[in-house]
This record gives sequence, structure tokens and C-alpha cells, in this order.
Amino acid sequence: MPRKITVGGAQLGPIQRAESRTDVVRRLIDLLEKAHRRGCSLVVFPELALTTFFPRWYADDIAEMDVYFEREMPSAETQPLFDRARELGVGFYLGYAELDDQGGTLHRYNTAVLVDQTGSIVGKYRKVHLPGHKEFDDSLTRQHLEKRYFEPGDLGFPVWRSMDGVMGMCICNDRRWPETWRSLGMRGVELVMLGYNTPTGNQHGGMEPPHQRMFHNHLSIQAGAYQNATWAVAVAKAGVEDGHELMGGSCIVSPQGEIVALASTVEDELIVADCDLDLCNFGKSTIFNFAAHRRPEHYKIITEQAGVTPPKE
Amino acid sequence: MPRKITVGGAQLGPIQRAESRTDVVRRLIDLLEKAHRRGCSLVVFPELALTTFFPRWYADDIAEMDVYFEREMPSAETQPLFDRARELGVGFYLGYAELDDQGGTLHRYNTAVLVDQTGSIVGKYRKVHLPGHKEFDDSLTRQHLEKRYFEPGDLGFPVWRSMDGVMGMCICNDRRWPETWRSLGMRGVELVMLGYNTPTGNQHGGMEPPHQRMFHNHLSIQAGAYQNATWAVAVAKAGVEDGHELMGGSCIVSPQGEIVALASTVEDELIVADCDLDLCNFGKSTIFNFAAHRRPEHYKIITEQAGVTPPKE
Repeated sequence: MPRKITVGGAQLGPIQRAESRTDVVRRLIDLLEKAHRRGCSLVVFPELALTTFFPRWYADDIAEMDVYFEREMPSAETQPLFDRARELGVGFYLGYAELDDQGGTLHRYNTAVLVDQTGSIVGKYRKVHLPGHKEFDDSLTRQHLEKRYFEPGDLGFPVWRSMDGVMGMCICNDRRWPETWRSLGMRGVELVMLGYNTPTGNQHGGMEPPHQRMFHNHLSIQAGAYQNATWAVAVAKAGVEDGHELMGGSCIVSPQGEIVALASTVEDELIVADCDLDLCNFGKSTIFNFAAHRRPEHYKIITEQAGVTPPKE
Repeated sequence: MPRKITVGGAQLGPIQRAESRTDVVRRLIDLLEKAHRRGCSLVVFPELALTTFFPRWYADDIAEMDVYFEREMPSAETQPLFDRARELGVGFYLGYAELDDQGGTLHRYNTAVLVDQTGSIVGKYRKVHLPGHKEFDDSLTRQHLEKRYFEPGDLGFPVWRSMDGVMGMCICNDRRWPETWRSLGMRGVELVMLGYNTPTGNQHGGMEPPHQRMFHNHLSIQAGAYQNATWAVAVAKAGVEDGHELMGGSCIVSPQGEIVALASTVEDELIVADCDLDLCNFGKSTIFNFAAHRRPEHYKIITEQAGVTPPKE
């Protein structure tokens, strides 16, 4: 039985602050329908795909930002996307800001869900690697307050058997961390879905020009895919959003680490690839046969501590 | 005080089986002298830089291969390299097969040493990630018997303060494993030296064409350097050795992951770059500030086991 699934990466152009959820969901459905016409059975949408990237703004009281969060998924506004996906038999990955009310205690996460072809949520992931900072920092050219508005994800890096494969998720900055990919790889992942919102400019200034930032985006995804012999589908929210420029570069990467589909705009755009999940077998059984080659007795420092221990002066 | 060191990558063309250690050491000294003339204070030689890549041959009795191993470093044959390096004030990394006699029990490792500008060995590394297999395998287009002739390294991934920086080493296949780079990164590494002998063709046949193998070589090094904000100097033994083709592609990679020097031949060739170790500070203090961003509580599977645990069917 071949395990070939046709996957769409549904890049979004910017979502301006004034745009309603209803309008955004209409854009998502347009992309979903286009993907269906092109034969896709799975569509990946970006991180925070329902709103503007609000962590670029500072609010003294974080509850002011709750308007950008979802209290339930699906909600009245997002239900039409779930309904249309079920009608078409297309699964999807959707990133959004999650407000989780635990008996009156509110928790906020940067979240993605995996919805299967019957419209059921089969998996949830909460972003582990939150970039940026917690307090307003006037040394920066722009704020990036994810550490203010979100708690780090508390669900680890699970995988799910769905759509004939082993599916994993991560979000944006997670892709730069090889621990993300390896944690999924250790669970046999065959397709990693990830959305991102990444500014074209580095907030610390000129050390890192925009072309280098796009290179880092692809480098991290391609290395993660190759070194874990998995497909990867990485999808941007792109373009100038409320005056701030986000990179595009959405891509689908093969288990050999090559980009096999690449977005060419910074607008709503669909990229498509036929992903044969059995192509993962070659890497997983040879050079990245983990059981044969890994030596965890020498890796202990990776999990024993978060920070660096440099050698004595 | 700027910490800029000029580093040479001394790629070697093939070393044929019949070539003597004395002849090889003369080639190493030629490259060392050339590097000195170009202002280098550190030179990186390849893996197994004194002999042909003997693990491509099968021997029933592994002791038959001991002729390719060094019982001491330096030896009578390698002493001239150490002497010339000390005279010129140039440090170096040298890969070789090490025969370690522990009270009559022989241990064999794929080893590299770091020699400082006074000619003293300041660090030793033994290859952890041995590729290939232990027994003759007639399903393969070529044998790769590193697991037969070497034990996995027992020294972990140490770093050393030397030449004004934090120096780390690895060897060949180690570069494909993000655990190698992260273990060094967790110790504050600023320059990773590595030698390699990598066949242009995959021993498992046509799934992986030569251009993809060169891409994987650079992808792994560039990702490792970027994600740990370190310089990397990666040096091949290249060309057709005893009828088997090895890739070139020796390169020097900046802490931003970009190739800043690249070999253009598969022969003895020197590449040079001025490596400002302070360029590591940007990545290490911002996006890869490990203490601020890593979440080891979610990485446990990386060190708890070697192999994969897939989800239940």
C-alpha cells in the first residue's frame, strides 16, 4: 500500500489588525478549496493564522490581548472552516492563540491543532520555544513579546498516527532548535507541520540582514528534515502586516532535506507536493538508524541543564 | 582585545595504499608552511590524515589493519610535523587511527588531536558516531567497516580553552548528528574542527545521488554552526583513493551558518578565513541564548534511549 499524501502549504499574506475572524476564515476556506481542487488531502496553515501577529505590541495588562485569543476550537467563527474541510475530506493544521480556562485560572498558549479528514481534532501542540522577551525593551528596533503573552507549551513534542503516517507539529521558532526535530524523530515522525510569523529584520539591528534570515529559516527546516528523515511542511504568514514586514519562503522539504516546493510571493498562496511517506524509510533505516548509531551516554548535558557551562578560564 | 584567528583548512587529495607515512607527512608540512605564509595560526587536517581510508576493506582478523594505526603521537614519522608547527608557531588538528595499549589490551579509535602553537597536544577526541557496519555485507556496493575496526569514542565531547577561544573537535559522521554540535554548544564552543573521508556515492545504491551527499555535508555543518553560534572548519580527504572516490567540499562556516571559504578541487588544497571568535557572541546572546530559551524538560527522550519509539498502531 503506497502511503503518498498530497499536501498543501497555505501561506497567508498579512492579516491587518482591523480584519475580522470571519474575513480571515473566508481566506482560509478559499485556500482549502483550492488545495482540494489540486488533490490535497492535508493543508497546513500558518502560526497565529486567525489574527495579526499581536506580540509585536506591548500592553501593560496582558488581558488586553485576549481579543486575539480563542476560548474554544472550533468556535462559531472557525466552525465554517471545520465544516468545509469535513465536506471536502481534507485534514488541516491550524495555528492560533489559545486561552485555556482551568477553573477560572487562565493559561495562554501559542497553539496548533491537527484536524483529520473527518473534521475531528486529533492532536494539539503548544509552542515550547517562545522567542523574544517579557518586558518592553527600548534597546530593540521592534518588540517581540511572545514570552509576555504566552506560557511555554506543556505538552512536549507528541506525534499522532493519522492519514496513514506518523504526524508531528511544531511552531515557528521551534524549527531553529534541533531538540524539536529530534524529539519528534525519536517518536518516528514522518511529516512535521509548522507555521511561522517571522520578521524580515532582526530586532537587534544590522548583524543579520534579511537574506541571512531567510537562509536560517530554510537551513533549520532542511537540517531537521534530513537528520530525522521526515517530510516537513513549513508555512508563513507573510508580507507587511500593520506596518511590519514578515518573510514568506513557505516550503515543503523532503526527507532528504531538499526543498521540493517553495512559495514565490508574500501573499495568500498555495504550494503543493506529493509526499510519499515511505521515502522516510531510507534515511531511518541507514545513516539515521538511531538504534544503531546514537550514543546517548555522551549527550547527557543536553537534558541536564538549559544553559551553557563554559570551560574554566 | 580582538579575538581574530586566521584558520586554514588543509584538504588532502587521496592517499594511496602504497604511500608511506613519511611521504604523507611531507604533504602535511607543505600545507602547513603554505598556511603559515598566508598568515594562519591554526590548520585543520582531515580525518585519518596519515593513511588511506582502510575501513573500506574487510579483514577477517582486525589486527591485519594495525599497520594503519598509530601507537604513539607524535611518532618518529609524525615528529617532523610537530617540530615544523612549533617552529612556525602554528597549531593544528590532526585525525588518525589510534591504537591504545592498556596493559596489553588493545583499543582502537578514530581519533583527532588538537596541537597548540607550542607543539603540545592540548586535546584529544575519539569519534563517537561510527558509521557503517561490523561484518562484511554483500548487499552493499561498497563496504564501510568503521564499526569493525574502531570502538566508539569514550571521551564524550569536551572543549578546550586554547588560542584565545573555546575549541571543540568532532570527526566526519559526527557532523550529521545535532547532538554532537549541541553537546559542544552547551560547553560554549566557538570553533569546531572536523575532518572527514566521505564517499561520493551511497553504499546503499541510487537513492542518494552525489550532489545530494555534498548538500548533506554542508547542510549538517552549516546548521550545526548556526544553531550553536560557532565557527566550523570542515576538511576532507578527497579524490580517487585506491579506486574509491571521496568528496571534497572542505569549508569554513561562520557562526551565522554561511560558508565563507570553500575548496574548489579534490586535491591537496588550502582554504583560509579570518575567524573573529567574537562574532559568536551575537547568536549566543540573542536567539540562541540557551539559558533563556531551551526547555530541557521536554527533551528527555533524546538522552533516555538510543532508538525510536513509534506510536502504537
